[in-house]
Amino acid sequence: MHATSLYQQVKNAITPYIDEHKTAFTVALSGGVDSVVLLHVMNALQADIPQLQLTAVYVNHGLSQYADDWQAFCKKRCDALDITFYAAQVKITNKSRTSLEQLARDARYQALDQISPSGSIILLGQHLNDQLETFLLRLKRGSGLQGLTSMRQTRALSSGRECLRPLLHSTRQSIEQFAADFNLEHITDDSNSDERFDRNFIRQQIVPLLSERFKGFENSAARSVSLLQQQQDLLDEYTQLDLQQCQNNQQGLSCLQLAHFSAARQANVLRCWLGQFTTLMPSQQQTLQILSQGLTAQADAQLLIQLAQGQVRRHQQFLYFVREIATAHSQLITDEKQRLSDGRTLIQLAGEGIRKPLPDEQVYVHFNCPQARIKPLKKPGHNTLKHWFKDAKVAPWLRANVPLIFYNEQLVYVVGHFISAEHYQQEGIFWNIKT
Amino acid sequence: MHATSLYQQVKNAITPYIDEHKTAFTVALSGGVDSVVLLHVMNALQADIPQLQLTAVYVNHGLSQYADDWQAFCKKRCDALDITFYAAQVKITNKSRTSLEQLARDARYQALDQISPSGSIILLGQHLNDQLETFLLRLKRGSGLQGLTSMRQTRALSSGRECLRPLLHSTRQSIEQFAADFNLEHITDDSNSDERFDRNFIRQQIVPLLSERFKGFENSAARSVSLLQQQQDLLDEYTQLDLQQCQNNQQGLSCLQLAHFSAARQANVLRCWLGQFTTLMPSQQQTLQILSQGLTAQADAQLLIQLAQGQVRRHQQFLYFVREIATAHSQLITDEKQRLSDGRTLIQLAGEGIRKPLPDEQVYVHFNCPQARIKPLKKPGHNTLKHWFKDAKVAPWLRANVPLIFYNEQLVYVVGHFISAEHYQQEGIFWNIKT
Repeated sequence: MHATSLYQQVKNAITPYIDEHKTAFTVALSGGVDSVVLLHVMNALQADIPQLQLTAVYVNHGLSQYADDWQAFCKKRCDALDITFYAAQVKITNKSRTSLEQLARDARYQALDQISPSGSIILLGQHLNDQLETFLLRLKRGSGLQGLTSMRQTRALSSGRECLRPLLHSTRQSIEQFAADFNLEHITDDSNSDERFDRNFIRQQIVPLLSERFKGFENSAARSVSLLQQQQDLLDEYTQLDLQQCQNNQQGLSCLQLAHFSAARQANVLRCWLGQFTTLMPSQQQTLQILSQGLTAQADAQLLIQLAQGQVRRHQQFLYFVREIATAHSQLITDEKQRLSDGRTLIQLAGEGIRKPLPDEQVYVHFNCPQARIKPLKKPGHNTLKHWFKDAKVAPWLRANVPLIFYNEQLVYVVGHFISAEHYQQEGIFWNIKT
Repeated sequence: MHATSLYQQVKNAITPYIDEHKTAFTVALSGGVDSVVLLHVMNALQADIPQLQLTAVYVNHGLSQYADDWQAFCKKRCDALDITFYAAQVKITNKSRTSLEQLARDARYQALDQISPSGSIILLGQHLNDQLETFLLRLKRGSGLQGLTSMRQTRALSSGRECLRPLLHSTRQSIEQFAADFNLEHITDDSNSDERFDRNFIRQQIVPLLSERFKGFENSAARSVSLLQQQQDLLDEYTQLDLQQCQNNQQGLSCLQLAHFSAARQANVLRCWLGQFTTLMPSQQQTLQILSQGLTAQADAQLLIQLAQGQVRRHQQFLYFVREIATAHSQLITDEKQRLSDGRTLIQLAGEGIRKPLPDEQVYVHFNCPQARIKPLKKPGHNTLKHWFKDAKVAPWLRANVPLIFYNEQLVYVVGHFISAEHYQQEGIFWNIKT
């Protein structure tokens, strides 16, 4: 009973959403057999689940000469079933073949998100064989656990939109059988048989050989992937617990905590920590370098490891990820809200701070003047800014971007840190910085 | 430079052992290209590492009609290289093909262990392609992380003997190239091309297709497997930490500790805990049953879940794995050391206990008499044994095998637990049990 089982599988997949009163679904329709079957199953489910609201969308990449015909086909199918249909046009600049696949995929998700009714759950037609193909493609790339388990039954887009793959436990064969049983018309994408695409090669050359030799191969492999997903989730859970234990409220990673962990666990939590700041993960060698230097160097020694999108620095036994920001330029301050060259805004406010400037005093903001001298309120004596920053344990890489307010050549206010004792006034003025 | 790289890879693999002064190695020689190349590389390494001691062993399964010829071939190669050679004969009863492979493998490891010089490290010829084939075979079986990552560079036999696979990072092609470059003779096992064996099918039909299409496929897949191994190791580490946190010194698993964990983590630590007692893991459904009943049932409710090799029971908020042991039979005690029907020994000793039996008192050991009554020393009043066991919080399934000493019909001593107050004597006799 292929038909029943497919119907039941889709029903099982959407039931948790219905139970949470999420009843609006949008089928991502390509006109191919998978999404056409999905559309029909969802349409049939409306008899069982009256509150179910169904729409369909077609994303026209214009990559095939038939794209407009397919769009017309999809519209016709939806009209016949009385399902609201939307289409979106997407333009993709043609680059190399590999990146074309990726570009088309990204653009497709973005367009789907934009044209699908707000709040609806997008249903994707990917099935068990798609997952197996993805797995083998990732194996070909040498991916680890995360890569090998990437196609999940649910995914969230960056907008927060939920996507669901109700056919992920169904084989291609059972879907094609359903289409045949119910005599469902669908289009055949000529590019799906183009073996210049790696996925099509795997689909047409590898999987059929394995399935013919090993009965139930697709289902067994899917079980493997599902077990790997569970193990990835478990590992993620342990990793998050480690991260919580090691991270302070400035997203610094505690070297003292890390030191209690095994080398493997250190590398794992370090990579998870870095993942919050950068998509370009360090090499294994860089990871080892960060750990060996971070954990063994003397507490007061400088640590700086350059990664692709920033630096790992250490301060007070914590590691920090520091993005490189150009130091802002000096400016004459003329307005109460003044935009700095790095995009931040300097705001002058009334309150505990310093006296207003005298008529012959110009107000400047400077940056990165470690040798400028000041006698801060409640601190003993005059000294350089470098001294006071060190005294206050401000991380070195944060210092260069602290706005320094000068009256002529005299440093009078260090935003967020120090007030000149000589210029102090309880009902005076002070400055804030807004990013 | 295939030859150099192979030489270097083997050298890298054995160096950590040499550094630990483990210098004796035994090549598991089959006569096939892999082990012959390994033998020659190890022989060549003796020039670099003079302290290296090399032997070779051949395991004759008698499965092939050529087995004796191969043995003779191996001996000849070793004689030519002046390497001590041992051979072992192994008999395997022919069953179905699948189990034959497994039986042959087990018998081979056992024989290797027995004939290899004591303390030597056994070198196995498996290479990168063998690993990839194993991976795909496990995928076909729907294995999880542990199964997919089973072929490691090192393994320990149950005897503690270390085995090493120095060629695990080398492709079959590079090994064959080495043999060709150095004109090394080797035998060709006819069964290696028999496609009735799944492994041979994968070797001959699947991997060549993938390697031809995707340059470096074998190395990429090996990187995936290596990453999965690292992630499995990390998961094992986290799991062991959880187990340490949950297990008491009687190997009981704390329900109260488990309750702090997520469902996935509970299932994971439960399976790890059970793995200490049984090789037959519970199904996913049984796992859920143990957890839901174990963690939610009332503290005093009985819990009994039957698994293949024993039961999971709960006592005092801890789960225990209980193997079924037949209750021992009643006996008349005639000797100071008396063997029980379950294999344990009951030993009579002098010391704080009860008075010796009177001439008209026969001494018996009985088991499982919950209704027998006794007034134990330092306990208030007479009551049933059931009452006193419960009072002392002895787990129910432990009670039936506690030896009960009777003088005629009177219970006088409960081994390890209670002494009859009426029969108490400071310088008397008592009994111990030895397993």
